[in-house]
Amino acid sequence: MPPSFQEMWRELAALGGHADDGYRRFAWTAADADCRAWFAAQARGRGLAYETDRNGNQWAWRGVSESASPDRPAGERRSAGPDQAATDAVVTGSHLDSVPDGGAYDGPLGVVSGFAALDELRARGARLRKPLAVVNFADEEGARFGLACVGSRLAAGQLSREQAARLRDADGITLPDAMARAGHDPEAIGPDPERLARIGAFVELHIEQGRALADTAHPVGVASAIWPHGRWRFDFHGEGNHAGTTRLDDRRDPMLTYATTVLAARKKARLAGALATFGKVAVQPGGVNAIPALVRGWLDSRAADEETLSRVVEQIEGAARDRGARDGVRVGVTRESFTPLVEFASGLRDRLAARLGGVPVLPTGAGHDAGILSATLPTAMLYVRNPTGVSHAPAEYAAEDDCAAGVTALADVLEDLACH
Amino acid sequence: MPPSFQEMWRELAALGGHADDGYRRFAWTAADADCRAWFAAQARGRGLAYETDRNGNQWAWRGVSESASPDRPAGERRSAGPDQAATDAVVTGSHLDSVPDGGAYDGPLGVVSGFAALDELRARGARLRKPLAVVNFADEEGARFGLACVGSRLAAGQLSREQAARLRDADGITLPDAMARAGHDPEAIGPDPERLARIGAFVELHIEQGRALADTAHPVGVASAIWPHGRWRFDFHGEGNHAGTTRLDDRRDPMLTYATTVLAARKKARLAGALATFGKVAVQPGGVNAIPALVRGWLDSRAADEETLSRVVEQIEGAARDRGARDGVRVGVTRESFTPLVEFASGLRDRLAARLGGVPVLPTGAGHDAGILSATLPTAMLYVRNPTGVSHAPAEYAAEDDCAAGVTALADVLEDLACH
Repeated sequence: MPPSFQEMWRELAALGGHADDGYRRFAWTAADADCRAWFAAQARGRGLAYETDRNGNQWAWRGVSESASPDRPAGERRSAGPDQAATDAVVTGSHLDSVPDGGAYDGPLGVVSGFAALDELRARGARLRKPLAVVNFADEEGARFGLACVGSRLAAGQLSREQAARLRDADGITLPDAMARAGHDPEAIGPDPERLARIGAFVELHIEQGRALADTAHPVGVASAIWPHGRWRFDFHGEGNHAGTTRLDDRRDPMLTYATTVLAARKKARLAGALATFGKVAVQPGGVNAIPALVRGWLDSRAADEETLSRVVEQIEGAARDRGARDGVRVGVTRESFTPLVEFASGLRDRLAARLGGVPVLPTGAGHDAGILSATLPTAMLYVRNPTGVSHAPAEYAAEDDCAAGVTALADVLEDLACH
Repeated sequence: MPPSFQEMWRELAALGGHADDGYRRFAWTAADADCRAWFAAQARGRGLAYETDRNGNQWAWRGVSESASPDRPAGERRSAGPDQAATDAVVTGSHLDSVPDGGAYDGPLGVVSGFAALDELRARGARLRKPLAVVNFADEEGARFGLACVGSRLAAGQLSREQAARLRDADGITLPDAMARAGHDPEAIGPDPERLARIGAFVELHIEQGRALADTAHPVGVASAIWPHGRWRFDFHGEGNHAGTTRLDDRRDPMLTYATTVLAARKKARLAGALATFGKVAVQPGGVNAIPALVRGWLDSRAADEETLSRVVEQIEGAARDRGARDGVRVGVTRESFTPLVEFASGLRDRLAARLGGVPVLPTGAGHDAGILSATLPTAMLYVRNPTGVSHAPAEYAAEDDCAAGVTALADVLEDLACH
């Protein structure tokens, strides 16, 4: 008997935690290595073909032939899986790394549910007609190197080897160096089109990162799209001066312009039904008794469509410049990243929704590996209800019954995709 | 001939600068040592008795007897100066350390003007009836160890040796360790009442740190008082969450409360004729895509009297709590420091103003060594006009003619005090 959902959850919960402060499972660290060892052990314990691909993503394969003889271990293979020629493999999974002080569910719920769904299919005696795998994508959160979804981006060719080699952590260690120190050969990293070509569908189960399901009777929903989103750096250039001696009328205080922009961002987003957040700010010189010379604030904004997003950001920028003119503060705005709208493959999405029968179909503002891969192959997502709505923080939560409903829904979907 | 004001200024300007970014002359660093060596050389070159006191403050003394024979070098002494029994010494000076990326004038103008005024008195053939000294107080800005006026506080017994031993810089080096590394015996630090008892008056010349003189015909002013001032830490506790997925209505975003408080501080200060500044802010977790769990902002506020200051801070706190209630954000306020009103000795102040004839008499919001010492002995301050009004930044400036007027005014005042 493989370990139950609850047993897997308890084992994984013990790895990379920091007391009450949540998890710090950053890519290619010791905590990440513990999680990766756990994944490999789960694969091997189930007799799945385990492998690590060139970009450090972990795969656990169940082949077509094995489904009829569930108790024969498949052993390890360094190949892409049992069926090199297949083009219709069905893959589920997510990631095991975390944001700083992150919650337990974002990522791990999809991986644990993937193994549990495979166990359920086996218990059901489901006869696979296509290869089935659970995947753990490397470095999804980007907490260490600043770029999200590195493992899936590399595989999909959306991040080149040269770009990846320039990524550095806060200590100046490059991604390839970090991979090498973790025992992974960085010479191999790069696009992996043959591997992705063998996959016919990728379904990622994820904790909901909001409260759209919380007030419904549905423990599970299906993703419709990932909102377009981006990051904009606002530089507010004022005049550094002495906080104790400079008359208010003589000041050019960029903190005032920043504060006005923070409030404008909330208001403009609310009026447009969009999201806007300032979660990071840097001040120069940053002394208690010094009027800042420079305040730098980062805007994260997202909306249902790109036109709305552009309009909201323009309005926020306009409010910043208006106030800057009054404050004697020059405002510079730089778009640091932008991700267009991702619409999940409608055929796959509709098939999931039909199989699950009338569950909510919801958009999200968060990026995921399923979003990255959607440009290359049909992908879909299932959400599990989160009563707190909290994400990327220790209060992130799903009830045990809802997790079980998620596993059942995932098993239903995988059975539908892999057994027909 | 001792070096002229301009020659001294050029020599000193070359020390501890960082290209166009201003000066980084932090206490007990290599840049500070260069400035201190310059001070000792100025003292010795003029035949003044040079000494460093137990707290690292530097003194250059001219005794009564020497004033009649200006060309005889006095040599070095380790004593407190030429007249151990005197209780009426007249002292001028300021400090040579700087804030991060500070200007050239804050501190050095008072030291250079002190030497130049002594030269002028000698040129005038003034006959001293009291000992006269130039002082360089150690660590006035507090840029390295976080507490201002350490040298004068220690001497005046306002900072104990034990408290001083607990001061640490950003690298964890304690003040005594830093002093020892700079070649100064930290065993000796502590109150110096006998030294201060020998001083009858301390007059500090300083660049004006605002524009009160800028629009007048007066290059020089006299200080009336130092406004009461303090620092308050505002902790805004919200709920960390995902910036891309959390609905606006579900957020408890402390950045909004902080922004409202910044704007309220400006408004309340303006209405009360006070000053209020947020120049430092820290955010947890500080990720671009994370709604903050905690925003911490530091308020610097100052006013003409303590009642007004208390009222302004209460109003700002009230605005923070009102908005916090709307945002679901808990607000905690901690007073981290407070300095009561300093009124300069009225007799000395009036004597300076009378000697200089109708110059403006002005309060300031900035702390100074003269403010610390005012609790122990009669102190006064002269300000030199600053057309930019900028202070603690590279744009800090005084015109050459105004610096010369400052030296003349200081010489007039010192002559009045030391020759009668």
